[in-house]
Amino acid sequence: MQRIYLDHAATTPTHPEVVKAMLPFFTDAFGNPSNIYSYGQEAQGALEEARTKVAELIGARSEEIIFTSGGTEADNLALQGIAYANEYKGNHIIITSIEHHAVLEACKFLKKRGFIIAYLPVDEYGLVDPQDVKKAITDKTILISVIHASNEVGTIEPISEIGKIAKEAEVYFHTDAVQTVGHIPLNVDDLSVDLLSISGHKFYGPKGIGALYVRKGVKLASLMHGGGQERRRRAGTENVPGIVGLGRAAEIASHEMSKEAERLACLRDKLIKGLEEKIDNIRLNGHPRKRLPNNVDISVDFIEGEAMLLNLDLEGICASTGSACSSASLEPSHVLLALGVPPEQAHGSLRFTLGRENTEEDVERVLEALPRIVAKLRAMSPFLKSIK
Amino acid sequence: MQRIYLDHAATTPTHPEVVKAMLPFFTDAFGNPSNIYSYGQEAQGALEEARTKVAELIGARSEEIIFTSGGTEADNLALQGIAYANEYKGNHIIITSIEHHAVLEACKFLKKRGFIIAYLPVDEYGLVDPQDVKKAITDKTILISVIHASNEVGTIEPISEIGKIAKEAEVYFHTDAVQTVGHIPLNVDDLSVDLLSISGHKFYGPKGIGALYVRKGVKLASLMHGGGQERRRRAGTENVPGIVGLGRAAEIASHEMSKEAERLACLRDKLIKGLEEKIDNIRLNGHPRKRLPNNVDISVDFIEGEAMLLNLDLEGICASTGSACSSASLEPSHVLLALGVPPEQAHGSLRFTLGRENTEEDVERVLEALPRIVAKLRAMSPFLKSIK
Repeated sequence: MQRIYLDHAATTPTHPEVVKAMLPFFTDAFGNPSNIYSYGQEAQGALEEARTKVAELIGARSEEIIFTSGGTEADNLALQGIAYANEYKGNHIIITSIEHHAVLEACKFLKKRGFIIAYLPVDEYGLVDPQDVKKAITDKTILISVIHASNEVGTIEPISEIGKIAKEAEVYFHTDAVQTVGHIPLNVDDLSVDLLSISGHKFYGPKGIGALYVRKGVKLASLMHGGGQERRRRAGTENVPGIVGLGRAAEIASHEMSKEAERLACLRDKLIKGLEEKIDNIRLNGHPRKRLPNNVDISVDFIEGEAMLLNLDLEGICASTGSACSSASLEPSHVLLALGVPPEQAHGSLRFTLGRENTEEDVERVLEALPRIVAKLRAMSPFLKSIK
Repeated sequence: MQRIYLDHAATTPTHPEVVKAMLPFFTDAFGNPSNIYSYGQEAQGALEEARTKVAELIGARSEEIIFTSGGTEADNLALQGIAYANEYKGNHIIITSIEHHAVLEACKFLKKRGFIIAYLPVDEYGLVDPQDVKKAITDKTILISVIHASNEVGTIEPISEIGKIAKEAEVYFHTDAVQTVGHIPLNVDDLSVDLLSISGHKFYGPKGIGALYVRKGVKLASLMHGGGQERRRRAGTENVPGIVGLGRAAEIASHEMSKEAERLACLRDKLIKGLEEKIDNIRLNGHPRKRLPNNVDISVDFIEGEAMLLNLDLEGICASTGSACSSASLEPSHVLLALGVPPEQAHGSLRFTLGRENTEEDVERVLEALPRIVAKLRAMSPFLKSIK
């Protein structure tokens, strides 16, 4: 049975070209970039080349890129780093109720350490209102953090409008762009962001590597202390193969993402349309148009997301019930609840996220399998019986 | 020209078997371990297998291993994690003056946040006196951190003696074992440590991966907040290929390290003896016997370490002037100064650290090259002229 992978928001397969680029840095050019002899300098050169490629993908300067161990570290560095370096100015941080757990939990930690966190609501599509951001700013506000696009429902937030408000108020502005970088074109100046989180494995780079864009002049404390790597902002021997892989993934994305986003948006719309036609009592979560080109997030009434997921898995189709980071939990998604989805519908949610190896046939297979699975599960559903 | 790499304390080439073990997890078994479908479970299985291998290498239980992005993160997690989770008990932390920068700088950060750091001296060989540890403990002490073996001078500290003292005083005890794990047999129970830092790329694993051993029951706060990975102690999608690589490196080390340590100790002693015979006015830094089997750290009077390093590099020999993390700095090594090496001798220091691909011929090539280089540099040395 050929497996169909439709969970690219959780993780992507590493691009073969990325693996190829990484390989020499394990066994041959394996030097420590901090060292001044030739082995070290070889690694150092590769590091700076990768930094340039990542910077170019988001319209930044290479010295504004700090390599991290992934998106979670980038988010934690942004949140904790801004908080600690700017607490002399204030202790107020504004985020939204649909942030990724990395931002939410970093804020919970900061709350214990004396910071005040304001949570902004979203509308039924998951959109933040920039005017709500403006109203929430106080003279103690040191940071605003709004996710670029929701990893669950795919809604793309009005980051550039919020960025203008943040700039005017002279408050630092961070966006978790883990789901957008490498998928849709973006530019840190157009978005007016001061900090932006990147994760390698979300766009065909390797796991264990990411980056934080930090605009020149931003005051940031370190999360990881030690050696003087990354201009003293992130200690630890650089993950050279990982960084080279991230650079190669950025380079590939910069060539391919525009066309690929168009292709995926067609598949996405075909999948949404097909599911709406073939299954009663389902709803699309997130914004119908302002959404990631690869995201289909639905709630199916009367049945559990997990049951659909496992039945799809038996047929070789890999989907998700929402964020991979929380799928071990039995709580309904905080994002769906923030959108006003009733808990029973939130429990019946399913996310498909398309990627570069998916084809029209994959979409057709889902459109054949899921309606059948839903019918079977509904026939056994205690929810459905109770309302009959 | 065939290059001779003698800087294994800075980083090691990844073992070809390690790369081989990692490869399937980039492109085939690339799932996110948090997910419940088959792709995710494949990755999850590999993760737990690697955890067991790492645990076995140090005599721990697999649930006591937290994977991190490297040794620096492991050190920061240990220091910051213990500090924040135990500040209700006290704010006093004891370390030594020869710790790695990751420990030193994490402590500097904690000092700014209200913790008090006590720095213990070492003797002329770099040894900490366990009685000094005992005397330094106060009723506010929450953590003792002592490096297992110095990354610069190679001295192996009396960890198990200090561990007994810490245990008796009911104070948590951490050791940075980045230079010893995978190189010499060790056991967390014999050492009586509660936390122990591991780095993959120091023993033929990949860069960008490490681990922190945390004894069951130890109260530890997270450094990276977000998803529930690593039993809620380290958020972020797991670096599956890196973790698998670390596991394979641990497995290889557990089979080979005892024999390899013997072989390297012979090469080390041959190199030390040869250098002492062929070069006047040099001294061995660190303990003559209680030292890492692969470490040769010398101070050569009247000339600069950097000059020797660059001349060796021209002949294809890669060494180091000390810690890779500080080799970009012009300050003399804090470790050598702590041993009482006068600054001018500290500036003339050179470190060779042997590894698995080194042979007797490599040692002979150094013994041929370095005396010649020293003679040439001394002939031009302003230091030497001034004392003539």
